[in-house]
Amino acid sequence: MGSKFKELKRECYEANMQLNALGLVIYTFGNVSALDRAAGVFAIKPSGVPYEHLRVEDMVILDYDATIVEGSMRPSSDTKTHACLYRNWEDIGGIAHTHATYSVAWAQAQRDIPIFGTTHADHLTADIPCAPPMGDDLIQGNYEHNTGIQILECFKEKQISHTEVEMVLLGNHGPFAWGKNAAKAVYNSKVLEAIAEMAYLTLQINPKAPRLKESLIKKHFERKHGKDAYYGQ
Amino acid sequence: MGSKFKELKRECYEANMQLNALGLVIYTFGNVSALDRAAGVFAIKPSGVPYEHLRVEDMVILDYDATIVEGSMRPSSDTKTHACLYRNWEDIGGIAHTHATYSVAWAQAQRDIPIFGTTHADHLTADIPCAPPMGDDLIQGNYEHNTGIQILECFKEKQISHTEVEMVLLGNHGPFAWGKNAAKAVYNSKVLEAIAEMAYLTLQINPKAPRLKESLIKKHFERKHGKDAYYGQ
Amino acid sequence: MGSKFKELKRECYEANMQLNALGLVIYTFGNVSALDRAAGVFAIKPSGVPYEHLRVEDMVILDYDATIVEGSMRPSSDTKTHACLYRNWEDIGGIAHTHATYSVAWAQAQRDIPIFGTTHADHLTADIPCAPPMGDDLIQGNYEHNTGIQILECFKEKQISHTEVEMVLLGNHGPFAWGKNAAKAVYNSKVLEAIAEMAYLTLQINPKAPRLKESLIKKHFERKHGKDAYYGQ
Amino acid sequence: MGSKFKELKRECYEANMQLNALGLVIYTFGNVSALDRAAGVFAIKPSGVPYEHLRVEDMVILDYDATIVEGSMRPSSDTKTHACLYRNWEDIGGIAHTHATYSVAWAQAQRDIPIFGTTHADHLTADIPCAPPMGDDLIQGNYEHNTGIQILECFKEKQISHTEVEMVLLGNHGPFAWGKNAAKAVYNSKVLEAIAEMAYLTLQINPKAPRLKESLIKKHFERKHGKDAYYGQ
Repeated sequence: MGSKFKELKRECYEANMQLNALGLVIYTFGNVSALDRAAGVFAIKPSGVPYEHLRVEDMVILDYDATIVEGSMRPSSDTKTHACLYRNWEDIGGIAHTHATYSVAWAQAQRDIPIFGTTHADHLTADIPCAPPMGDDLIQGNYEHNTGIQILECFKEKQISHTEVEMVLLGNHGPFAWGKNAAKAVYNSKVLEAIAEMAYLTLQINPKAPRLKESLIKKHFERKHGKDAYYGQ
Repeated sequence: MGSKFKELKRECYEANMQLNALGLVIYTFGNVSALDRAAGVFAIKPSGVPYEHLRVEDMVILDYDATIVEGSMRPSSDTKTHACLYRNWEDIGGIAHTHATYSVAWAQAQRDIPIFGTTHADHLTADIPCAPPMGDDLIQGNYEHNTGIQILECFKEKQISHTEVEMVLLGNHGPFAWGKNAAKAVYNSKVLEAIAEMAYLTLQINPKAPRLKESLIKKHFERKHGKDAYYGQ
Repeated sequence: MGSKFKELKRECYEANMQLNALGLVIYTFGNVSALDRAAGVFAIKPSGVPYEHLRVEDMVILDYDATIVEGSMRPSSDTKTHACLYRNWEDIGGIAHTHATYSVAWAQAQRDIPIFGTTHADHLTADIPCAPPMGDDLIQGNYEHNTGIQILECFKEKQISHTEVEMVLLGNHGPFAWGKNAAKAVYNSKVLEAIAEMAYLTLQINPKAPRLKESLIKKHFERKHGKDAYYGQ
Repeated sequence: MGSKFKELKRECYEANMQLNALGLVIYTFGNVSALDRAAGVFAIKPSGVPYEHLRVEDMVILDYDATIVEGSMRPSSDTKTHACLYRNWEDIGGIAHTHATYSVAWAQAQRDIPIFGTTHADHLTADIPCAPPMGDDLIQGNYEHNTGIQILECFKEKQISHTEVEMVLLGNHGPFAWGKNAAKAVYNSKVLEAIAEMAYLTLQINPKAPRLKESLIKKHFERKHGKDAYYGQ
C-alpha cells in the first residue's frame, strides 16, 4: 500500500466503474486510463477483469512507452493506443474506450456522425470523425500502437484539433474519447453515445435532414466554451 | 433561510429532479422553471450543476426581464427563453426544456410530429409543431430571448393556442413544454417523448400511416379536457 | 372494510401495479379489470389515479351494464369497453388495456402483426389482429361501449376465437388483452409488447421476412396448449 | 438433500438466474443446462417455472438420452435439443437458449449476422449462422431432438467449428449458445444479443456497410484466443 500512485489509481478505478454504471460497457468491453503528466505515467484497467471484481490496487501504472512501472496484473490489451495518444497530445489527461451500442454502429457503418443539432454543438463544432479501418501493414505490425497512429493521422488529415473534438470513431471498431482527466473522458464517451443515438434516429425520420447551420454551431459552442462563455458556474 | 421564495424554490427543485428521474435528461441537459405569477418572479435551475449536487436553495429567482432577484448562482443559460414565454403567455406557471432522445430526433429532422393515435389526442388535438431554426440575425442577437420569440411566432403563424398545445419542438434544438405549474411542464415533456417514440416507430412500420381522423381526435380530447370530461377524479 | 369484494379488489389492484412494474404504462395510461363471474361484477382501476397513490380499496366494483355496485371513485374511462367484453365473452376473467410503445406503434400503423416466429406461436396461431378504427357514428355514440363492439366485430369477421387469440390492437388506439384472470391479461399484454417489438425489428432487417410455416405454428402451439401439451408443470 | 448432483444443480440454477438478470428473457422464455461430462448427466431448468419461484433443488438431472436421472419436476420442453448437442459435441459443458429480442429478430429475418466489427471478431471469426427452419418431417417427428440435428447439420454444411463459433440462430425460432460451462453459455448469449443489436443498427445507418476485413478478423480473434493471446489475466 506504499504506492506513490494511490491517487492516480483511484481516479482511474472510479472512471472505469463509472463507464459501467453509465451503461456504456458490458462485461470487460472497455477501458479508461488516467494520466499524471508531471510524473510521466498513467494508470489503466487490468485486462479482462470483470467490474464487480475490480479493485483500486489492481490498476496498472505505465510510462509513455507502455512499460509497466507498477502493478502485478497485465494491463488492458489497448494500452499502447493510450500510450501513443498521451505521448503525442500533451494536453490530455484521460482516455476512455468503449463498445457502446450506437457509437459502434456508426463506426461499423464507417460514417462520420453529422452535426444535426445543438446537443452536438454544445460539445463540438465538427462532425464526429470516423477514422478509416487501418491498412493491413499497420494491423499486422504493432497493432495497438498503430491504432493510436491511425487516430492521429485522421485528425491531421481532416485538420481537426483534438482539444476541440475530444472523441473519434475508429472504423469497424468503436469510439475513443479523451479530455483533461479520466472523468471528462468518460463524460465525453456518454455524450458521444447520446449524440450517436439521436443522429441515427434523425436519419430514420428524415434521411435528408440538413446539418446544423454555421451560425448556430458557433453560437452554441461559444456560449459554453468561448471567451465570453456564460454556461455553468 | 429567510427567503420568501422557499416554496417556489422547492417546487422548482422537485420538478428538476423529476426530469432526471424520468430519464429525460443526462448530466445537465435540461432545465425546469416554476412561476409565482402574483409575485412576478420565477425560480429556475442554476446553470451546469449536476443533479446529484443540486439543492433547493440553489434555485435562482428572477423577474420577467431575467434580472436576478435572489440567488448567488448563475441561472440556466436558457433563462431568457423562460422569461420571454412567461411574459407573453399569462396563463402558464411552469416550463421545462430537455434534450430527450426521440423529441430531439424529430427536432433535428425538422418535422412536426403527426397525430397518429389516441395517446396523442388524449393530450392535444394538433400535430406537435416544429418551429423552424432561427434566422442568423436572431441567433447573433439576444439568442435565448429570441428563442422564446421564435416559439411565439410559430404558434401565431400556425394559429395554435398555447393552452391547447402545451409543447413545441425547436428545429435543430429540442423540446420545450409548459403547463399550469412546473410539475405539469415535466409531465408534458414525458408525454411528448412517449408520443415522439411511438410516432417514429409508426412511420417505420408503415410510412403511409394516416393521421388520426377528426372525429376520434375530438372525442379523445374532449373526454379528457372538454366541458363534459369524464376522465380523472 | 366490510366489502364482500375484498379479494376481487386485491386481484385487480395487484394486476394494475404489475402493469406498471413491467414497464407497459407511464402515468395513468392503462387499466386492468378482474371479474367475479359468479357474482356478475368486476373490479377496475379508478380513472386518472397515479400508480404510486393507488390503494386496494380504491378499486371500483361494477356490473355488466357498467353500473357502479361499490366504490366512491369514478371508474376508468374505458370501463364500458371492459363491461361489453365481459358480457359477450363468457369465459374470460380479466382484461388489460395499455399504451405500450410497440403495440401502439402497430395499432397506429393499422397493421396486423404477422406471425414471424415461435415466440408468437407459443402463444397464438394467428396474426395479432388490428381492428380498423371505428366509424364516425360509433365514435359519436356510446364510444367506450362501441369500442368493445368493434373488437367483437373484428373477431367475428376474421373468424378468430377469443380463447385462442387473447389480444387485439385497436387501430389508432392501442392494445387490449384478456385471459382467465387479471394476471393472465397482464401477462398477455407483456407478451404482445415483446412480439410487437420483435416483429418490428424483423421487418427492418428483412422487409420480405416470410410468415412462420403452418407445421411450426401447429407444433409450437400444441406443445404448450394442445391435448398432449408437455410444457409447464 | 442427499443428491450427488448438488454442485451441478447449483451451477445450472445460477446460470438460469443470470439469464434473467441480464435481461435476456422475460417470464419463462429460456433455459440453461450444465453438464457433468464425467458422470454423463446434465442439469436443466424445470419447464415453465417463473424465475422468482425457482430453487436449486428444482433442477432436473438427465442423461444423454434425455431420461430423467433425478428430479420430480418435468424438465424444460427443449431438453432433447440440449441432450442431442451434448451427445454430439464432446467438448461443451453448458448450453443456453433464449428469446432475446435482437437475436430473435435476426432469426425471424432468416439472416446470418454479418461480421461488421471487432466486437464480433473478439468472439468469433465467422458470420453468426442462421440455420434454416426445419423441414416438415423433422417438425412432425421428434421435434426437440431434431432441433439439435438441424443445428449440427448447419455447422457441417457451412463447415464451421462449434468450438470457434459457440452460437447459432435457428430460423424463425431464436438463439442457442454454448461453451465450456453454463456460465460461458450465458455469456455467449449476452454477447450474441449485443452483436445482433449493433449489426441491426449498422445496416440501418449504412445498408451497404462492408464486412470486416480478414486481417482485422484474424488480429482481434488471435489476440484474445490465439496461441500468443495477450488479453485477460
